[in-house]
Amino acid sequence: MAEGNRSPIATVRAVSEAEATGKVAAIFEEIRTIKGIDFVPNIWRVLATNPDHLESVWMRLKTWMHPEAAGRTAQLDPLTRELIALAVSATNGCAYCINSHTAAAMKLGLSPEALGEAMAIIGLFNSTNAIADGYQIEPDVRPPVQQE
Amino acid sequence: MAEGNRSPIATVRAVSEAEATGKVAAIFEEIRTIKGIDFVPNIWRVLATNPDHLESVWMRLKTWMHPEAAGRTAQLDPLTRELIALAVSATNGCAYCINSHTAAAMKLGLSPEALGEAMAIIGLFNSTNAIADGYQIEPDVRPPVQQE
Amino acid sequence: MAEGNRSPIATVRAVSEAEATGKVAAIFEEIRTIKGIDFVPNIWRVLATNPDHLESVWMRLKTWMHPEAAGRTAQLDPLTRELIALAVSATNGCAYCINSHTAAAMKLGLSPEALGEAMAIIGLFNSTNAIADGYQIEPDVRPPVQQE
Amino acid sequence: MAEGNRSPIATVRAVSEAEATGKVAAIFEEIRTIKGIDFVPNIWRVLATNPDHLESVWMRLKTWMHPEAAGRTAQLDPLTRELIALAVSATNGCAYCINSHTAAAMKLGLSPEALGEAMAIIGLFNSTNAIADGYQIEPDVRPPVQQE
Amino acid sequence: MAEGNRSPIATVRAVSEAEATGKVAAIFEEIRTIKGIDFVPNIWRVLATNPDHLESVWMRLKTWMHPEAAGRTAQLDPLTRELIALAVSATNGCAYCINSHTAAAMKLGLSPEALGEAMAIIGLFNSTNAIADGYQIEPDVRPPVQQE
Amino acid sequence: MAEGNRSPIATVRAVSEAEATGKVAAIFEEIRTIKGIDFVPNIWRVLATNPDHLESVWMRLKTWMHPEAAGRTAQLDPLTRELIALAVSATNGCAYCINSHTAAAMKLGLSPEALGEAMAIIGLFNSTNAIADGYQIEPDVRPPVQQE
Repeated sequence: MAEGNRSPIATVRAVSEAEATGKVAAIFEEIRTIKGIDFVPNIWRVLATNPDHLESVWMRLKTWMHPEAAGRTAQLDPLTRELIALAVSATNGCAYCINSHTAAAMKLGLSPEALGEAMAIIGLFNSTNAIADGYQIEPDVRPPVQQE
Repeated sequence: MAEGNRSPIATVRAVSEAEATGKVAAIFEEIRTIKGIDFVPNIWRVLATNPDHLESVWMRLKTWMHPEAAGRTAQLDPLTRELIALAVSATNGCAYCINSHTAAAMKLGLSPEALGEAMAIIGLFNSTNAIADGYQIEPDVRPPVQQE
Repeated sequence: MAEGNRSPIATVRAVSEAEATGKVAAIFEEIRTIKGIDFVPNIWRVLATNPDHLESVWMRLKTWMHPEAAGRTAQLDPLTRELIALAVSATNGCAYCINSHTAAAMKLGLSPEALGEAMAIIGLFNSTNAIADGYQIEPDVRPPVQQE
Repeated sequence: MAEGNRSPIATVRAVSEAEATGKVAAIFEEIRTIKGIDFVPNIWRVLATNPDHLESVWMRLKTWMHPEAAGRTAQLDPLTRELIALAVSATNGCAYCINSHTAAAMKLGLSPEALGEAMAIIGLFNSTNAIADGYQIEPDVRPPVQQE
Repeated sequence: MAEGNRSPIATVRAVSEAEATGKVAAIFEEIRTIKGIDFVPNIWRVLATNPDHLESVWMRLKTWMHPEAAGRTAQLDPLTRELIALAVSATNGCAYCINSHTAAAMKLGLSPEALGEAMAIIGLFNSTNAIADGYQIEPDVRPPVQQE
Repeated sequence: MAEGNRSPIATVRAVSEAEATGKVAAIFEEIRTIKGIDFVPNIWRVLATNPDHLESVWMRLKTWMHPEAAGRTAQLDPLTRELIALAVSATNGCAYCINSHTAAAMKLGLSPEALGEAMAIIGLFNSTNAIADGYQIEPDVRPPVQQE
């Protein structure tokens, strides 16, 4: 349990699970239930320092990453969604997010070898992005690709 | 055909298909064949200004994005690979790459609605990346997640 | 009016105001009303290709940028909010966003000279960010700054 | 005091306050005085490994962040300036800078709840930046917004 | 000559060379002289909308990119300096800057083939950056590398 | 020696030198030989979790950073190549890469003062990149600069 945790985990003092009340407590409970975990990850405890922000980010994450809980039918499968998240996070170099999405993808069955393939693709296109921008290469066909 | 094209498409004069010889001509031919298209996209014609660079990028792209042509068995399916490429390119804001990978993903069957879901996930995690970094949030569990 | 607009504005065909129905039409109306404008900006018409995405982004933008319409009391004033948006957009180099937030800030009274001051600060800290990272400089005091 | 500090704080050995002489010592003194602190933060001690660089960055920071000391009249107030700095630093994910500007903003009175609002806005626009770029959305009106 | 230019080149109306007075006119003259060109590039005319900003950026650019004019002895040669500038600009995807630094590097003798080598290195390390961050790889040796 | 190392260095368990076999062992040996070091740096041991990825990145790095070993004649000298790598890495804020390329540049003779000059240039252009993008400044001359 993280309730007693007072060690620094961010630039603000995170809200512990024990001290959460009202809207924050309700969202914390929903996070534990929907994610099937017995603790509230650090990011949510930090966001709780502004309850509206906690609600805003959680609503959005629930909609797109837990579609069944939000009453939506997703087009993309859970592992593809986590790989998109990992591609964004590796490109931005966000340590918290990389750790979190790598763990989630592996929980969904991604092997180290398949992670290597994902990283190869992430690396390849960070490379071609810099080259295409660096040469100021014009698109071959101007979008939109699905105009009438 | 792009052979006669002399209009500016980059900060250097691209190599036309008609003037390509030797290693460049061979790679141009392989690009058309493996991609099943009848022209050489701008990026390859620009890379051809340094034939070793053309070879280096094409070898890497063939390995990861055309695994069957490289004699590899891929772990990730073609649409997932293009969505990873699009996630990287949207995060970096690379116009050439966004146009190219959006077209490729749609050719593989991605609908505008499913593209919207991918963009929602790309947007969501660019958001949480900035927030997690902006608060300097510590990872919940220190990786590696698959240590012995 | 943009209703008749069929010229390419994105990699997908945007939803015109005339063809919007249901949830999309209702959000388009709310956008025009809350923003006090007589057209729906391109980004919302593009997001409408996935109505859930349109709703998700608009709800979040309404919460933080139009707090009075969302029933919130904001801590930061409208110009400060637009300057934060501009700082993010200039750092990322997002053309659509830079144009949009510069126009919004000027509508709120920002003079070209004051915009110059904002740009000087944006430029200065993009500089020190690269230097602090480039030398791997350790923080002077480890946060959180407001621990108990 | 940091004078005796020999522990690694960067990829180069920082200049201690005790060993500073000439131009470096004078700038160190000015930093302590203008900032009203009794030590020289790590970044300035690292920059001092090239005295011209120390001078160049400090002159620019003094001009924009300590305008009164530079004989300028600022258009933006100190908290707005720090929030712009924080928006840039969170977007870039610069740990040293995030810690430093969060501490400075809190010293100027920013509450954790208001910091949450700033982070919500920083997160929101990192999201819309990726989406606007990811769809290659054209600006609604081409700037300049204040042409004659 | 750009003096009569009133076409939009930025989100603000740039200062023309003809209308410049005082500090702005003096800096414009210095730019033309030191750079050996007969017009003032767009960026300086835009910065002139806030004369202190123009002065601040020009002073810094003169110091590092025109060291002889600033009375400094540079450690790095002019082409190496432009290649560093190009590496930064390609990584950030800044169109204005890529065009400007590519032109400057070519004026200094960089051939298209050597530009290709620079782009290959820029691309390679944008790739390994994403991979090293994406796997959260620990440094082999903790800097500083030149501690006593 | 790193052979016995089991401490976490990444989000996956790195391959130790002792357990490497086949293609991985051969590349590890080549890395030690060409780089003239007696251990395999962490990044290669992590890449080895997908042997094709290890081979793909090493082939590319050998081509551009160890041209003599790849049978190429380089246009740019070794220090310039490392400074380009450092400029990319500082701009992206990649800790592993910054440490590695700073060490390599210093091994090639870069003094702390010259590193300061490189950092000044890296910082300067990260600044002007944000400003040029932030104002949406049009290029002075449209490339390509070397059209026929």
